[in-house]
Amino acid sequence: MIVVDRIAAMQALISQHRREGKTIGFVPTMGYLHEGHAALIERARQENDIVVLSVFVNPLQFGPNEDFARYPRDFARDRQIAEQHGVDVLFHPEAGEMYPGPLTVQAVVKARTDVLCGRSRPGHFDGVATVLTKLFHIVMPDRAYFGLKDAQQVAVVDGLIRDFNFPIELVPVPTVREADGLAKSSRNVYLSPQERKEAPALYQALRSAAAAVDRGERSAAAIRRLVREHIEAHTHAEIDYVEVCSYPDLTPLETLHGTVLVAVAVRFASARLIDNIILELPKAHKQED
Amino acid sequence: MIVVDRIAAMQALISQHRREGKTIGFVPTMGYLHEGHAALIERARQENDIVVLSVFVNPLQFGPNEDFARYPRDFARDRQIAEQHGVDVLFHPEAGEMYPGPLTVQAVVKARTDVLCGRSRPGHFDGVATVLTKLFHIVMPDRAYFGLKDAQQVAVVDGLIRDFNFPIELVPVPTVREADGLAKSSRNVYLSPQERKEAPALYQALRSAAAAVDRGERSAAAIRRLVREHIEAHTHAEIDYVEVCSYPDLTPLETLHGTVLVAVAVRFASARLIDNIILELPKAHKQED
Repeated sequence: MIVVDRIAAMQALISQHRREGKTIGFVPTMGYLHEGHAALIERARQENDIVVLSVFVNPLQFGPNEDFARYPRDFARDRQIAEQHGVDVLFHPEAGEMYPGPLTVQAVVKARTDVLCGRSRPGHFDGVATVLTKLFHIVMPDRAYFGLKDAQQVAVVDGLIRDFNFPIELVPVPTVREADGLAKSSRNVYLSPQERKEAPALYQALRSAAAAVDRGERSAAAIRRLVREHIEAHTHAEIDYVEVCSYPDLTPLETLHGTVLVAVAVRFASARLIDNIILELPKAHKQED
Repeated sequence: MIVVDRIAAMQALISQHRREGKTIGFVPTMGYLHEGHAALIERARQENDIVVLSVFVNPLQFGPNEDFARYPRDFARDRQIAEQHGVDVLFHPEAGEMYPGPLTVQAVVKARTDVLCGRSRPGHFDGVATVLTKLFHIVMPDRAYFGLKDAQQVAVVDGLIRDFNFPIELVPVPTVREADGLAKSSRNVYLSPQERKEAPALYQALRSAAAAVDRGERSAAAIRRLVREHIEAHTHAEIDYVEVCSYPDLTPLETLHGTVLVAVAVRFASARLIDNIILELPKAHKQED
C-alpha cells in the first residue's frame, strides 16, 4: 500500500494507472475506520483493479458549533485497517494541501438538503459536495463507494454526480451493524455504557416501521408516530427528527409509495446518532397521495 | 469531423481516445464562431491529438434581461468553420440534454466576480462555472482554451480549475482583433455602421493607457481617466466601467504593480462591448501601494 499526501503526486499516480487501462474504485472517508468502511473497501476491492481510500477530516463540512476539533482521529490504526483490507493507495492530505487559501468557487447543493440532517446543518452538504468534487478530480475514480447509513449524503452525491456529469458510478453500500442492530459509526465511541445499551432502539424502531408497512400501513404520520414512540419508550435520547420521504429526491411523503426512506436522528448526552431504512413499495399507490 | 449531441456518446468516445493514450484539447464556445475562436482551435490543434469544440448557448449564464433569446446562432456555419480548422469532434447538445431538470447542485463563484462585468451580471459566472464543470466532465480534456478578450472569465476559470483540482491545463489565448483594432466578438454583428466606426476607440484607449504606463505612469486613477476621456471623445457609447486591477485575483489597484488588467465595457445603442489589456509591471513597485 502506498500512502500519498500530495495532490499532484496522487494525480500523477492515478494518471499512470489509467493509462495502463486499470479501473479505480474510491472510498472517501473521514477516517477512524470501522466495519462500515471495511465493507466499502471490500466491495471496491471486488469491482476494481486499484482501490483508493482517502482519510481527510474535511473542515468545510463542519458547522461552527460542530465537532470538527474533537472528531475522532487515529491515522496509525486507519493505515493498518486499510492495508489489511487490501487498499492500494491511501490518500491522506493535510488541510492546507486541500485548502491552500480561500476558495474562489464552491459546490452549492440546491435540493435534497432542506430535510433530515440538512435542515439542522446549514452548509454541511455544500462542504461535502465541494470536497467530493475536489477528491473526484484528484482520484479520478470509475466507481465511488458510499455507505447508506448516511442516506441523505448518498442522495446528495447522486445529484452531484448526475448534475455535474461526473464520469463516475455511484455505488451505495448497505449499512453495517453491530450484533444488536446498532449502525456502525465513528461517533459510537462517544456513547456512555447506558447510552450504548439504549442505542439499538433506533434500528428496532425502524424495523417495527418496516413490519407495519409489510402489514399494509401506508400513512407516513402513523409510521413517524410508531418510530417516535418506540424510541421514547426505550431510550433517554432526545429525538431530532423522524422523517418519511421519497428516495433519492427526499420529498416528504404523506402516503408511502415507490422507494421510501424512513430516517431518524437522536441526541444522546454525548453523541448524535442517525439511522434509516429504505423500503421498496409499489409505485401504484401514488394516486392515494 | 464527428458531430455529437448526446452526453453519454461523448463520454464513451472520449474514454476510447483516452484509453488509446491520446491527448484532448477542448475549446468551449457559445457558437457563432469568428477568428477569435479559430485562434483557439488552431492553438488546440497544435498541442493535442484530438480537438473537441463545443457549441452550446448556455441559458444558465444569461440574466433575465439579457440577450439569451437573440444571441446570434448559425450552426451550419459553425460546423463548416470547425471542420475547416481541423476540429475532430463537435459537441452540440440541446439545452434539455445539458439541463434535463432542475439542478440539485451548482458551482458558485465566491471571488473575482464583484468587479468588472461580474458586478452588473449577478449569477453570470455561477452559470459559466456550472456549465464548464459539466463540459469538463463530458469532454475530459487535458487542456482547455479560453480567449483573453473575456479576461474575467479566464480569471474565474483559473480559480475553478485550481480550487476544484481539475486535472486540466488552462491555456489563455490572446485576443484576436480586426485590422483597426476592434476585438473580434460574436456581438459585433449588432453594431450599426456608425457604431462599428467608433468601436476601435476602445482598443486605442487601452493602447494609450499602455503607452502612459511605459512612460512611467503608475496611478490607477490617472489610467482610468485617460481611458475614459479617450472613449468619451471618440464614441457615442455609454461607459459601463473602466477598471484597473491585479490579475488573476482581480483586486482593484490604486498603484500599478505586478500583472495588471486594464478593462473596459461600454454600451452602444445596440450592443455592449468589452475589451482589455494585461500589462506586466515589476512587482517591486508594491511598496507604493
